[in-house]
Amino acid sequence: MSSFAIGVDLGGTNLRVAAVDERGTVLEVLETLSGIDRGREYVLDQIADRIRRLMWNHGARHRLLGVGLGVPGIIDLDAGVVHAASNLPGWVAFPVQNHLERMLGVAVVLENDANCAALGEKWLGAGRDVDDLCMLTLGTGVGGGFVVNGSPWHGVLGMAGEFGHMTVIADGISCPCGSCGCLEQYASATAIRRMASEAIERRESAALTRMAEIDPEFTARSVFEVACQGDGVAQSIFDTMGSALGIALANLINALNLPLYVIGGGGAAAWPAFSPALFSELERRSIVFRAGEPLQSRRKGTIITPTLLNDSAGLLGAARLPMLRKLPPQWQSVAL
Amino acid sequence: MSSFAIGVDLGGTNLRVAAVDERGTVLEVLETLSGIDRGREYVLDQIADRIRRLMWNHGARHRLLGVGLGVPGIIDLDAGVVHAASNLPGWVAFPVQNHLERMLGVAVVLENDANCAALGEKWLGAGRDVDDLCMLTLGTGVGGGFVVNGSPWHGVLGMAGEFGHMTVIADGISCPCGSCGCLEQYASATAIRRMASEAIERRESAALTRMAEIDPEFTARSVFEVACQGDGVAQSIFDTMGSALGIALANLINALNLPLYVIGGGGAAAWPAFSPALFSELERRSIVFRAGEPLQSRRKGTIITPTLLNDSAGLLGAARLPMLRKLPPQWQSVAL
Repeated sequence: MSSFAIGVDLGGTNLRVAAVDERGTVLEVLETLSGIDRGREYVLDQIADRIRRLMWNHGARHRLLGVGLGVPGIIDLDAGVVHAASNLPGWVAFPVQNHLERMLGVAVVLENDANCAALGEKWLGAGRDVDDLCMLTLGTGVGGGFVVNGSPWHGVLGMAGEFGHMTVIADGISCPCGSCGCLEQYASATAIRRMASEAIERRESAALTRMAEIDPEFTARSVFEVACQGDGVAQSIFDTMGSALGIALANLINALNLPLYVIGGGGAAAWPAFSPALFSELERRSIVFRAGEPLQSRRKGTIITPTLLNDSAGLLGAARLPMLRKLPPQWQSVAL
Repeated sequence: MSSFAIGVDLGGTNLRVAAVDERGTVLEVLETLSGIDRGREYVLDQIADRIRRLMWNHGARHRLLGVGLGVPGIIDLDAGVVHAASNLPGWVAFPVQNHLERMLGVAVVLENDANCAALGEKWLGAGRDVDDLCMLTLGTGVGGGFVVNGSPWHGVLGMAGEFGHMTVIADGISCPCGSCGCLEQYASATAIRRMASEAIERRESAALTRMAEIDPEFTARSVFEVACQGDGVAQSIFDTMGSALGIALANLINALNLPLYVIGGGGAAAWPAFSPALFSELERRSIVFRAGEPLQSRRKGTIITPTLLNDSAGLLGAARLPMLRKLPPQWQSVAL
C-alpha cells in the first residue's frame, strides 16, 4: 500500500489543500477562498473539512502519513504554535497543531509558508539534485527560506529567511521595520508600484501614466507589462529591483556558498526584466561569479533560477513535511 | 586507553602543532616560525617533524585518532588539496593530505583555517552550548566560517565564509577584489590603518600623527591605543568598523537566525572600541534585535561575542577534526 500526505497552503487570499503521494504525484487539489476575515474558527473548519474530504477520497487506497500546514507567519515548531503573523489575526499563540490533530485524529506538522516553498522546490522543483538551497519569495513583501541537508532551516528562534530586511543600500529608503535600505524597499511588488508612482509623479514616462489611467489596480504586474513594451523608465525600475536582489544574493553566496538560489513568489514572473541587472551585480560582488580560472568553470556549481513550481511550491512542500518528520509513536500507526 | 589528536595551525608567520585529548585538554604545544618563504618541502618537513615528536611523546599513553591540518586557503575537501591560497605559494593543487598521510602513516584531515577557528570555538570556546555558529575573523583581511550541526560548513565549492566581501556600503570604497563597499574595506587591520593614514593626511588628529611618528610599525593596534586614550578621530574609525560589522552581521542574523556569532582574529582585541557601533547598527537592522515583546526577551537567543579562545581557536579546532571525521577503514586501527 503506497503512502500519501495532505498539504495545506493557507494564504491571505486562497486556501489550497492537496493530497500528494510519496513520489510527488498530486492525487487531488481542493481550492477555496481562505476567508481569514471571517475568523480563526471558520478557517480551521474550512481546513478540517478539506482534509477530511481528501482522507475519505484517498485513505482507502493509500496510507496517510500526516498533514503539513504552511502558514504565513513565524512558527514555534516545538509547540506547534504561530508565534507572530501580521496577516493572521487571532492565530498568534493559538495551538493550531494540537487543535487540528484532535479534530482530525492525524499527525499535523506546522511550518512557515516560505520554508514550505523552499522544501517544495527541493523535493519536486529546481532543487531536486541538491541537498541545500535558498529560496527568496517576492510578493507584497520579500521573504524566503533555506533547505539545509534536505530539511527546512529554522534558525534558533524560527526567524531565519527574513531576506526582505537584509540591508542592500546602507543609507537607502526608510522601511516601516525601522531600518533603511532593506531589500523589500526595492524588490517587492509594493516597491515596484511605489517606484512607478514616483516616476509618474515626476512625469517621466507617458506609458506608465497611461497604464495607471486605464488599469485601476495598477499592480507590479502592470509595471512589468509596460517594461515589456519597451518603456525605458519602467525597465529602469526592474533594473533597480535586480540590482538590489543581486547585492543581497551576492552577500548570501559569499557567506554560504550554496549550490542553488531560487527566486519565487509572484515577483518571479518579472525575471526577464530584473535578471540582467541581478547577474551584473553578481559578476561584480560575488567571488564565485567573478573568479577567473580555475573557479570560472565552477560557476556551474552555483545556480540562480526562477521557481519551477510557481505558486504550487508551498503546497507541495507542505505535503512533504509529514514524509520527513519523525512522528511521535502515537501517530505512527495512524491508518484509515 | 584515552584518545588524542594532533592539530596543526599553519599561519603566515607561525606554525603551531598541538596534542589534544578528547576532552579538550592540551597535552603539549610546539611552536616555531612557519618559514613559508623557504618553500613547501621545508614547511612539510617541519610539520611532519613536530607531529612525530608529539606522536612519540603521547602515543604510548593515548590512542592517536589522527591529524587535523588548518591552512589559510580554499580547500578541496574530497581531494585533500589546497585549491587556492594567496599566502601559500606552491601549495595549490599539491596533494598535501595524501603526502602527509604517507609520510606519517596516520590519517590527516585538511581544513580551512577559519573553519578550524569556528570549530574550536564550538568545541571549547564561546560555542560550547550551541550546535550552529558563525565566526568572523578580523585580520589583515576579513574571513570566517560556519559550524552547522556541529561540523564545519563548506558550501558547495568550499567557498563559504567569505564575509570580507559581503557588501556593506553599495557604492562604498573600491576593493581589490573588483567590487566596492566590501566589509574588508572597513573592518580589517588594513582598513583601520588606511583610515588612520587618511585622517593624518587630513591633519584631523594630533594624537594619531604623534603615534605614527613614534611607532614605526603603526598598526591597527596603534590606532586602537590612540582611541583608548580618548582621541575622537581614532574612535570614529572604530565606529566605522563597528557599523560595517553591524550591517554585515544584521544581514546574517536576518537571513540565518543562528544562536551565536563570534568575532575572532587579531581585530577582536578592539572589541571595546568597535562594539558599541556594532550593536547600535544591529538594533536598527536586525529584526531579532529590534523586535518588541514577545521577541525582546528572545534576544537572549542571539549572542554576539568576541572569541573566547583568541589565537588558539584554530589550533584547537584543527585537533578536533579527526575526532569528528568518520575515517576510512584502513585508518581506524591506527595505534602506536
